[in-house]
Amino acid sequence: MRIVVLAGGIGGARFLRGLKSAAPDADITVIGNTGDDIHLFGLKVCPDLDTVMYTLGGGIHEEQGWGRAGETFAVKEELAAYGVGPEWFGLGDRDFATHIVRTQMIGAGYPLSAVTEALCARWQPGVRLLPMTDDRVETHVLIDDPEAGGAEGAAEGRAPRKAVHFQEYWVRLRASVPAHAVIPVGAEQAKPAPGVLDAIAGADVILFPPSNPVVSVGTILAVPGIREAIAEAGVPVVGLSPIVGDAPVRGMADKVLAAVGVESTAAAVARHYGSGLLDGWLVDTVDAAAVSEVEAAGIRCRAVPLMMTDVAATARMATEALTLAEEVRT
Amino acid sequence: MRIVVLAGGIGGARFLRGLKSAAPDADITVIGNTGDDIHLFGLKVCPDLDTVMYTLGGGIHEEQGWGRAGETFAVKEELAAYGVGPEWFGLGDRDFATHIVRTQMIGAGYPLSAVTEALCARWQPGVRLLPMTDDRVETHVLIDDPEAGGAEGAAEGRAPRKAVHFQEYWVRLRASVPAHAVIPVGAEQAKPAPGVLDAIAGADVILFPPSNPVVSVGTILAVPGIREAIAEAGVPVVGLSPIVGDAPVRGMADKVLAAVGVESTAAAVARHYGSGLLDGWLVDTVDAAAVSEVEAAGIRCRAVPLMMTDVAATARMATEALTLAEEVRT
Repeated sequence: MRIVVLAGGIGGARFLRGLKSAAPDADITVIGNTGDDIHLFGLKVCPDLDTVMYTLGGGIHEEQGWGRAGETFAVKEELAAYGVGPEWFGLGDRDFATHIVRTQMIGAGYPLSAVTEALCARWQPGVRLLPMTDDRVETHVLIDDPEAGGAEGAAEGRAPRKAVHFQEYWVRLRASVPAHAVIPVGAEQAKPAPGVLDAIAGADVILFPPSNPVVSVGTILAVPGIREAIAEAGVPVVGLSPIVGDAPVRGMADKVLAAVGVESTAAAVARHYGSGLLDGWLVDTVDAAAVSEVEAAGIRCRAVPLMMTDVAATARMATEALTLAEEVRT
Repeated sequence: MRIVVLAGGIGGARFLRGLKSAAPDADITVIGNTGDDIHLFGLKVCPDLDTVMYTLGGGIHEEQGWGRAGETFAVKEELAAYGVGPEWFGLGDRDFATHIVRTQMIGAGYPLSAVTEALCARWQPGVRLLPMTDDRVETHVLIDDPEAGGAEGAAEGRAPRKAVHFQEYWVRLRASVPAHAVIPVGAEQAKPAPGVLDAIAGADVILFPPSNPVVSVGTILAVPGIREAIAEAGVPVVGLSPIVGDAPVRGMADKVLAAVGVESTAAAVARHYGSGLLDGWLVDTVDAAAVSEVEAAGIRCRAVPLMMTDVAATARMATEALTLAEEVRT
């Protein structure tokens, strides 16, 4: 069975671990979000691709969910001693090596997809990991800019705003201020990376793990051609709600859902994807009341436990998703 | 007193520490060799500039003479795990941070001289450290290439040869094979870095520390304009022999001296620089017999202890050099 998964970072990576356990013989292609990518210290950092790679390759910091296990921070401390920031992005020494290799290869002319394949040659994640695109896409978030103040905005009766890199919003500001818009800068001009459209066209099942529907899965879908390919693939597309009991299971998905005018409920996220894209949707048992609402929107829905407490629980979620896929196939 | 010093790595850096101790009020400008510079892992590494900076700034690994004290090697181990080499160049985590900052600044358009100034803002070496040039110069060494074998070289009756980067010759091969030539690639097209010629023109004394006369001081002198400026400065130029008792005090200077047809003796090195450049020369007391030979070549010479065993001994060497400078000034 050929499974295509659109993955963000932690949620996507943990789901994939469960999926591999549930379907050990499946041929899994992961289309990874690169809208979170950021250049730090002159190095290209791909947080979501790395989280998938480290998690499936056995190198992840388990408790933290991102970064490497057993990290040290000598490089970061030295950079701070040089007065070179930002200090709010936690890059460990082991992680730095990944970014150094990636940046060197990109500098030598390799596209990100080839670099990712080379890095995975070490990690052996057991899936084919593709970036959504080889082109540069950077998710920016529009927030209020109290420092700008000034007459211009006031005269027009609105607060001045500014766009910040997603990582600045997410990591530095911890999504503590309202997001007025989420803009995947460069997405309109981006092309799917080699292999992405072929994988979708050849898939038996397409899964949306409980990743952020706006800044993870949404950014992947913003690359022209990907959403269309999924809608036209003619195979079951099943998602798992990242919202449980009206709150994100982890992270701050509610903040960016608000920016796109979507309520932070399991049903609202399903409707956001829409029946044109989604055939099936899993909500948590606490959201069982949402099932009829989702089905009314033309999306088959089941309520099952959706807490990825361990690999076994996550594998059961993956099995439920694959079971629902078979149900909607007929 | 304005002192200009042409410095390589360890020998130059240690001499400078003694000079600062001997002449605490002097205004010292160091013209650093950049022919050893190498791009590793996509990062620009300047071993000699860094050795001077770390040594004078209190960050050097004292026993080793290069690199940072208290180093860890997480990045290097990870790069090896990715199969990315070379593994023979020992970059520690702390050191990596320096190269990351440098590479980022160069990528942003700053010349090496500005980058060096920025790095020194942290280290406060107590001297003005200038790269010899902002242009790329890479010292290559011509060696036999037994692997090439083949008919071409044999037909011409000579062994095939190849040029390797100086660091590959020095660090990987440990100068274990004969050097047929030392070529500062790019030197002919290089311009002295901003401040270099002004510092020489404004100097009261110019010193050649016991650095490698071929690949350190020699490379600096290979940048068009520097040798001429020194010869025309009209101030005492005094050097200290890196050869003591017919052998290099440290390193493998004899190997590269052979490549330029210079005997590995204190007197031969003085004659190699020549009386057109050098006014005074210090040899070690064990080489006292060389004094008359050097003086016969038109260079004032004194035999004094030249082992840089500690800062105090090195400061005495610096004092002897400054004293000799005053002698030759009249």
